[in-house]
Amino acid sequence: MRLATVNDRLVLVSEDAQTCVPAQSVSLLAALRGGSYAPDGDALALDPAQCAAPLPVSHTFLDGSAYVNHVDLVRRARGAEMPERFWTDPLMYQGCAVFEAPNAPILADPAWGTDFEAELAVITGDVPCGASPEEGAAAIRFVTVLNDISLRALIPDELSKGFGFVQSKPPSACAPFAVSPEALPGWDGARLHGTMCIDLNGKPFGRVQTGEGMTFDFGQLVAHAAKTRALPAGTVIGSGTVSNRDAQGGPGQPVADGGLGYACIAEQRTVETLAHGGPRTPFLTEGDQVTIWFEDTEGNRPFGDISQTVKHRAGHD
Amino acid sequence: MRLATVNDRLVLVSEDAQTCVPAQSVSLLAALRGGSYAPDGDALALDPAQCAAPLPVSHTFLDGSAYVNHVDLVRRARGAEMPERFWTDPLMYQGCAVFEAPNAPILADPAWGTDFEAELAVITGDVPCGASPEEGAAAIRFVTVLNDISLRALIPDELSKGFGFVQSKPPSACAPFAVSPEALPGWDGARLHGTMCIDLNGKPFGRVQTGEGMTFDFGQLVAHAAKTRALPAGTVIGSGTVSNRDAQGGPGQPVADGGLGYACIAEQRTVETLAHGGPRTPFLTEGDQVTIWFEDTEGNRPFGDISQTVKHRAGHD
Repeated sequence: MRLATVNDRLVLVSEDAQTCVPAQSVSLLAALRGGSYAPDGDALALDPAQCAAPLPVSHTFLDGSAYVNHVDLVRRARGAEMPERFWTDPLMYQGCAVFEAPNAPILADPAWGTDFEAELAVITGDVPCGASPEEGAAAIRFVTVLNDISLRALIPDELSKGFGFVQSKPPSACAPFAVSPEALPGWDGARLHGTMCIDLNGKPFGRVQTGEGMTFDFGQLVAHAAKTRALPAGTVIGSGTVSNRDAQGGPGQPVADGGLGYACIAEQRTVETLAHGGPRTPFLTEGDQVTIWFEDTEGNRPFGDISQTVKHRAGHD
Repeated sequence: MRLATVNDRLVLVSEDAQTCVPAQSVSLLAALRGGSYAPDGDALALDPAQCAAPLPVSHTFLDGSAYVNHVDLVRRARGAEMPERFWTDPLMYQGCAVFEAPNAPILADPAWGTDFEAELAVITGDVPCGASPEEGAAAIRFVTVLNDISLRALIPDELSKGFGFVQSKPPSACAPFAVSPEALPGWDGARLHGTMCIDLNGKPFGRVQTGEGMTFDFGQLVAHAAKTRALPAGTVIGSGTVSNRDAQGGPGQPVADGGLGYACIAEQRTVETLAHGGPRTPFLTEGDQVTIWFEDTEGNRPFGDISQTVKHRAGHD
């Protein structure tokens, strides 16, 4: 099953993604809360440019950082050591549960050091407090892709206060489609195998393997989130930036240098700093175009494309 | 205007809180998004025990820590220094936007060190990105009271990871009523003056002045939250635990010793530790009863009572 939200209405997406049919439940949240996914109306042409996020507003977004290689690299970039326990105890923060459309502009202030982060996310049904990783995995209803916009220049100062991200993580954008696990050929029950593809200004920036380097699977992330609370249906759990080590255990290479590249600019800057003594790739500036899609093990793009253009944030005066 | 949610339905509460009338909009979120607060039906008897939180589920809960005295005290309790900048740069974390009913049980594991935190919260209309504190204050539509349940034994470990609270801050409970600022005699445009009252097992625990010691007002907290994102209507912004210094600038005294007491157990334990070398008040255990209400400058309880009993969390096996 593949779903989208068009004109504030939940729709079922056809196999070729050319048409859609309204679902009986008006929203994905209502459907997840016991509503119906049954088709209810005539088929319509589907224009991905008209898609909102499949779940435009939820109540809970808990974003993990399951690809620990990413944590290691971005910490190195800001001169912070990564504690050994991060390999056994998942990092997770409460994020903004408002999700932007796949083609929403990225409004950025040049002083913020705006970056993308391509990640997978799952949307759960009801999860009881204290659920096990197996119960967590079984509660996953849909998978999608997020661009977790990160304001790198604001992060060190905000994290040093110890309360996590607020200003430095504005709303994420979401791919147009949410897909149920059984419709995803690379789903192994708790991880999704395939390639997270990122193009920056039309050039390949990342071709990162989502099934590799995911230290904590989605079942473990859901269980971590549910340790002291029940998670209501519609909870979104993010994987954190997809990130791979290379065959030698190192941080890999940019695509331009023959590597798999990265799912955020910060990692590439760290690698450039390690290699050349300083970063060479700037953070996002006005006019930059970011395209993110997931390619499955059969070469398809089940979630459609996130395609965003960076706009200078107008002053508010 | 005073609102509640009864049987999944937004209702207007009468002046004496004995009756209510359904509102045209089904939910507070719908009303805030441009719906109607107009009465739509017959008056019904209002039983506060039937009230859910006035806004049972939102998309965004950003909890400040505006009473900096609280931060100073709980940090001292865990041997952590408070940076000087906390007096000028608001602390804020992204919290769980699911709100429990005023009489929901507090499900606690004895190992978690469960505590209450009585705080004020505001519910906003739409706030543009980059709003000023004045614009932030003007966007406040309703005020209410929260009990921000805090699992003290989990906090140091979780905060040391640097990503803020997830497991250590399960959903907050909310008072039965949300009240518009113009109906609150102690509202000064950005702060609410009155007394936050907390009884533990029927004995006064706190009688803390909400208009004093609030280093950052609600306008400043809303502006902080809106620095890099628009806040959609229905955003909840918390004040953090209400906390007063005494006349000498010290941490005050428990009610039993003639002071104003505290709005959480952690502060009282810190003061006990400073005075006696160790804490004397245990965290919450099964059967404990916590009652929280706000008394306004005219001696009324505009938000009604939060009244919760602690239950041992059953194992999930």
